[in-house]
Amino acid sequence: MRPSAGRGRGNGEYSVKPVKVGICGLGTVGGGTFNVLKRNADEISRRAGRGIEVAQIAARRPNPKVDTGSTPITADIFEVASNPDIDIVIELIGGYTLARDLVLKAIENGKHVITANKALIAVHGNELFAKAREKGVIIAFEAAVAGGIPVIKAIREGLAGNQINWLAGIINGTGNFILSEMREKGRTFEDVLQEAQALGYAEADPTFDVEGIDAAHKLTILASIAFGIPLQFDKAYTEGITRLTTADVNYAEALGYRIKHLGVARRTAAGIELRVHPTLIPADRLIANVNGVMNAVMVNGDAVGSTLYYGAGAGMEPTASAVVADVVDVVRALTTDPHNRVPHLAFQPDSLSDHPILPIAECESAYYLRIQAKDLPGVLAQVASILSDRGINIESIMQKEAEEQDGLVPMILVTHRVQEARIDDAITALEALEGVSGDVVRIRVEQLN
Amino acid sequence: MRPSAGRGRGNGEYSVKPVKVGICGLGTVGGGTFNVLKRNADEISRRAGRGIEVAQIAARRPNPKVDTGSTPITADIFEVASNPDIDIVIELIGGYTLARDLVLKAIENGKHVITANKALIAVHGNELFAKAREKGVIIAFEAAVAGGIPVIKAIREGLAGNQINWLAGIINGTGNFILSEMREKGRTFEDVLQEAQALGYAEADPTFDVEGIDAAHKLTILASIAFGIPLQFDKAYTEGITRLTTADVNYAEALGYRIKHLGVARRTAAGIELRVHPTLIPADRLIANVNGVMNAVMVNGDAVGSTLYYGAGAGMEPTASAVVADVVDVVRALTTDPHNRVPHLAFQPDSLSDHPILPIAECESAYYLRIQAKDLPGVLAQVASILSDRGINIESIMQKEAEEQDGLVPMILVTHRVQEARIDDAITALEALEGVSGDVVRIRVEQLN
Repeated sequence: MRPSAGRGRGNGEYSVKPVKVGICGLGTVGGGTFNVLKRNADEISRRAGRGIEVAQIAARRPNPKVDTGSTPITADIFEVASNPDIDIVIELIGGYTLARDLVLKAIENGKHVITANKALIAVHGNELFAKAREKGVIIAFEAAVAGGIPVIKAIREGLAGNQINWLAGIINGTGNFILSEMREKGRTFEDVLQEAQALGYAEADPTFDVEGIDAAHKLTILASIAFGIPLQFDKAYTEGITRLTTADVNYAEALGYRIKHLGVARRTAAGIELRVHPTLIPADRLIANVNGVMNAVMVNGDAVGSTLYYGAGAGMEPTASAVVADVVDVVRALTTDPHNRVPHLAFQPDSLSDHPILPIAECESAYYLRIQAKDLPGVLAQVASILSDRGINIESIMQKEAEEQDGLVPMILVTHRVQEARIDDAITALEALEGVSGDVVRIRVEQLN
Repeated sequence: MRPSAGRGRGNGEYSVKPVKVGICGLGTVGGGTFNVLKRNADEISRRAGRGIEVAQIAARRPNPKVDTGSTPITADIFEVASNPDIDIVIELIGGYTLARDLVLKAIENGKHVITANKALIAVHGNELFAKAREKGVIIAFEAAVAGGIPVIKAIREGLAGNQINWLAGIINGTGNFILSEMREKGRTFEDVLQEAQALGYAEADPTFDVEGIDAAHKLTILASIAFGIPLQFDKAYTEGITRLTTADVNYAEALGYRIKHLGVARRTAAGIELRVHPTLIPADRLIANVNGVMNAVMVNGDAVGSTLYYGAGAGMEPTASAVVADVVDVVRALTTDPHNRVPHLAFQPDSLSDHPILPIAECESAYYLRIQAKDLPGVLAQVASILSDRGINIESIMQKEAEEQDGLVPMILVTHRVQEARIDDAITALEALEGVSGDVVRIRVEQLN
């Protein structure tokens, strides 16, 4: 079904030599990045216009979730930063000190840099960006905020016409998981934290997550790109969720609110508000309904109004998604034709696919069917047999005898997923039944998980 | 508070001559685009690195919501496409025929083109993109799908590392308004449609909206950029909402679903599903809770999982937001330094602002306060007076006498917005009251409208 990762392209449209990347750190995000670059190599090169090759990995130990094959591995991250073959250094080791040295070295050597390190950018970003400009290289950091959600790109490019008024985000999945569990199950903070640690959502030392430091790093970055101010992590107000009680969670609920750990940045005449703290939000707001480890960021601009960006804020492949998007951005920036940097239809024009559009009869969906039955018990057996003969399984059924009108009783069915042609055929048979009146109403059902 | 639109910059960092744009069409979107470019001129040039000047407008009649000042106006759109001073032609006249001629002419003359025209792109995009590549110019069309939501950028760039599995969107605000009203108020389709027409949400001829044609145009574009296939509007399956009854809306609700008019595109082994139709979605999905004229698009990628993009899908300034973002993209692509195309912090490094970060005491918020009162009636008067003395207004109050424990009754207050210093002061006074036990719990409240 999917072309194999390394499939050669016979027509030579990517005969240009591949861009070579070095991955420093083969933990969760590093491993995910390697796997995504490998698995989606074909799809990615069709978008980027060039192949992308992992030329070297720096890792102190192997990652059991990653098959690095014949890719050269070193224990020394600085070897990657000095490798003359490498165009792009991907920093995924985390922390401030060694990561800063690595990035400075890579810049010094004329490499483009991609990082997922929010602490590094929030604390040392101003210095690193200045060095990168001096050397004419890119530093990209989409993965540093909200994992796979392209929210930095949205603010920095997609909302570039706006004066941003404010932004507010659920930007720490661990904290949101804890608050969601406290609300939904009435559990205490300590109880949920222990589970989060067991599940691997929270670190053994959860301080960065539950005290809001991680969120403050990310908020610092978002505020800078929203308002055009330097990174100022030291000025962010940070309050954690450790003192929240289930009593307050419940009172908030009774008043029509949910409590979320938000990063809020707001422009005012006097200055910029930059604050991370537990926050009551009206329960009907979309962002109030972002639960579990998911992240979401609301951005309000003077022209666009309120917008929201939602997705997985952490994890092996969601974060890798953002890292690889940055790789594609850098490769596209290296194109010789700046006016076709991003292909109109996302993929290079000579590599569009001829995968056919299916006629609706060949599409698959679940279905809601409403049948007007004359004699419910008798008709039900006939309906069930028509569906079962065609391999259509019923997920739920609702009969509203109380709603009988003119001797007709509505019978409502929801089916499992099935090809539309079968439903068409079943509907024809259902409408031919003596006990069914008029047309069968059919509406498609999608779970959208 | 805000710098005036045309404010001169004394230090000459934008002494490079401005990029000149021509706006064709001064209706809702054209008028919005002119106003946003003017109002946010300073902010936009700090992002783009160059000033942006509207050098000519083509309009058949003035727009009362726009003060075009001394900007030259012509009645002939082709004059703009041939104007040798103009770098970027913005097509906002709509329709297929004249718009196609205009865009072809502009490309022929070496102009970059920005358009909000989904019909044009869905039907003639393949041809227009080929011409643009030949001439080495950009065609940008972020505003063609989902108004101000930067969803094209998200898919084309932000998710470039993924194999996209499926996407599903509420991409017609009129249809979503009608369905929201039917569900919330039990109104009929015809009834709500008439109101939508009176409110200006629906056209006098609502066919494009309610029959799903407008959504199919947008879905065609989204599917192409998600899957790397040519635009194939003629193969999209399109079913409207005109036959939906309140009975089905209610039965869906009883089964735990909401009905939304969705555009769905899905990759399968056999081919691509491309379909617009009413759809039942589980009520707890975020997208099921997108109401009124708002738009939202879910995109599911193999690495990132499910993501969602939400905002205003139409309207004067939301659509202008996307048009202007495209202008900034084009201007950034014209930079002589491709590696600094997008500034690290969104704004040019020499034009970051020194707007201060406020200390938390100077930030403004509403507040949830929980007070443990010993003698409720007496304490209430004292609490009210402490707050009122400090200009703090109470929005709601909840007393839980039933929850009395150890002689203490929780009193919960939500205040209006006020500077944090005043709340700090009030809390000190509250905690000093004889009738109050222990610390006052304080959690901030944000409406996030």
